[in-house]
Amino acid sequence: LPEAKDVARSRLDLLEHWLNDLRGVGLEQLPTPALLIDHDAMIRNIAKLAGYASSQDVRLRAHAKTHKSVDIARIQMNYGACGICCQKVSEAEAMVEGGIKDILVSNQVVGEAKIRRLAELARRARIIVCVDDGDNVDRLSRAATVAGSTIECLVEIDVGSARCGVTPGEQALRLAAHVAERTGLVFAGIQAYHGAAQHVRLHADRKERIEEACALAAGTVLLLRKSGLSCGIVGGAGTGTFQFEAASGVFNELQCGSYVFMDADYQKVLGENGEGIGDFENSLFVVTEIMSKVRSGNAVCDAGVKAHSIDSGVPRVHGRADLTVTRCSDEHAVIVDPHDTLVPGEKLLLVPGHCDPTCNLYDNYIVMRAGKVSDIWPVSARGLLM
Amino acid sequence: LPEAKDVARSRLDLLEHWLNDLRGVGLEQLPTPALLIDHDAMIRNIAKLAGYASSQDVRLRAHAKTHKSVDIARIQMNYGACGICCQKVSEAEAMVEGGIKDILVSNQVVGEAKIRRLAELARRARIIVCVDDGDNVDRLSRAATVAGSTIECLVEIDVGSARCGVTPGEQALRLAAHVAERTGLVFAGIQAYHGAAQHVRLHADRKERIEEACALAAGTVLLLRKSGLSCGIVGGAGTGTFQFEAASGVFNELQCGSYVFMDADYQKVLGENGEGIGDFENSLFVVTEIMSKVRSGNAVCDAGVKAHSIDSGVPRVHGRADLTVTRCSDEHAVIVDPHDTLVPGEKLLLVPGHCDPTCNLYDNYIVMRAGKVSDIWPVSARGLLM
Repeated sequence: LPEAKDVARSRLDLLEHWLNDLRGVGLEQLPTPALLIDHDAMIRNIAKLAGYASSQDVRLRAHAKTHKSVDIARIQMNYGACGICCQKVSEAEAMVEGGIKDILVSNQVVGEAKIRRLAELARRARIIVCVDDGDNVDRLSRAATVAGSTIECLVEIDVGSARCGVTPGEQALRLAAHVAERTGLVFAGIQAYHGAAQHVRLHADRKERIEEACALAAGTVLLLRKSGLSCGIVGGAGTGTFQFEAASGVFNELQCGSYVFMDADYQKVLGENGEGIGDFENSLFVVTEIMSKVRSGNAVCDAGVKAHSIDSGVPRVHGRADLTVTRCSDEHAVIVDPHDTLVPGEKLLLVPGHCDPTCNLYDNYIVMRAGKVSDIWPVSARGLLM
Repeated sequence: LPEAKDVARSRLDLLEHWLNDLRGVGLEQLPTPALLIDHDAMIRNIAKLAGYASSQDVRLRAHAKTHKSVDIARIQMNYGACGICCQKVSEAEAMVEGGIKDILVSNQVVGEAKIRRLAELARRARIIVCVDDGDNVDRLSRAATVAGSTIECLVEIDVGSARCGVTPGEQALRLAAHVAERTGLVFAGIQAYHGAAQHVRLHADRKERIEEACALAAGTVLLLRKSGLSCGIVGGAGTGTFQFEAASGVFNELQCGSYVFMDADYQKVLGENGEGIGDFENSLFVVTEIMSKVRSGNAVCDAGVKAHSIDSGVPRVHGRADLTVTRCSDEHAVIVDPHDTLVPGEKLLLVPGHCDPTCNLYDNYIVMRAGKVSDIWPVSARGLLM
């Protein structure tokens, strides 16, 4: 019998070979379920936010946790991003290997092995990391010293999400001063990301939350400045709120990720006049196939929770207002089909409920331009959690 | 710059190399988040169900959609499973390559390319597939004829889940007769899986649903027999209900999957006297690390929805009744820690809410025996959806 690991590896080889045969084919010929990018829609999204950030005189440090793709990170850099964000050391390692040289790990890095890898990575690229704990700062300092590298630190402040981050103000100042005293580290600014505000549905509610976040960030920046600690980076913002941070005069780096693809949940987040936020288009789809159509009123497709993440709700059927996904199990989704139009084998495009964890399910993107497959892109950092 | 696909491939190589370095280490040295198997607990689960099936004189065709692992499928076969179930053709291909020669694709296979692959696979192994549509049967027949293989078909009947499957009775008979007439196909029996009943909390409620399913299956088997169509396989059952199907005298193949690992949701499914079902143990864990402990009353760990699936609820913290996971985002989970015992870097074991889609997130299992890493097993069919 072959070794199980060789089976796994040979499956990946076969999959790659197989996907490469898809170049030039249209939607009807695609295997299902598969993860599709509408290339031109994605480029328009990337250009739109790049143009907006430039017009507001803030930098865009696009978040690669959404796509985990070296190809897309390179495009974002080509469109003027100052760098990218990652959430994990292993994600950052993949991006550095792919040629991205300015990376914020927008997270706490804990554990000796991870800290050592981060310090080693900082020899090959500009590496910035978030901190909210003095002992963690000391460990980063020792590792950077051993590696002969410099790690830049953002003191993360909690601006309302009650997740990571110290209290804005004095607590942030003490930690920033602690960073500034340590060898191998540079105090680079603050991280003030309000994750919990991104998906709040109403414009006015998001605005109110981000105004509070901006006030907390501004107060902290001022306090730090008075102590001689200047914030090169005041970072935060996501696809749901970036306009508020950009207009604040406090933030100078936006960390949007989902804008490249959008998803069904972000499309429920409304702009000032009830329109969608930021005018971004859906550019990410799961192509699925009807596998069973027995009962009147519904049909079953072949994309369940292993094909798209339902943590933020079920997917929407693209371009088919008559169809509604109601139930998802591991390998099936039930679609209400009131006019019984669906037939087995029929292809549909699903807009995933949540793009980030959906992309993390796939090894490859099928990239389409003008209705034909133009490229296969690996999800370079898929599964890299450590 | 390197090709993005080479970056992805080299990351997998590095990951494999890195994990192989873990042999012999204990929990405290593991990278996080990672997917852990308690080997001996898993073996006890496998032995327990194998013994039960044997004592009830029914076959066990263990479902590989849970673990997607060639290593575990081989162990299940060694413990007497008659074969395995898969949900996807690509999953079955990986298992055949790994030496498993008796596979039910417990699903409809639709789409010409998939049907062709299934027919080709049937040259290398016994392949059984579910059908609920006459046109699909014709396509399977043509593909098997072209491939020079034989595909065995189970007519799937809907026994209460309202997902796939024809109506029990006459409609099933018509489709079975249709299968029996086609070249390249063999009518092998019926599929009567009641997915919706598996997670129903109360014993009496599950019993009632499965008694209905058994009556529908029994009636269909009888009707078929009268028409000269004998059911070699009457298949169904999962971890939540297998005792009912096994005792029915109608079912002869059980298709349990989750019993190897169990999960937080299945542990809410209660036996007759309020105890857990089947006396299975948790053998699957996500090892996570506290990454932030700033606020009193809670802490944040590094395993979010990219590290475990929350489609059936948040994970449980193993062995720590004082801790409760409350919120999960992509790369974080917030843990209520009322006595403020957690410190950054501390390791915890999470019991995933739902094992199947959690396993599908990882490229490898870290296998532990007696508290040390004994093996790294690939999740052989990870991401194989097609």
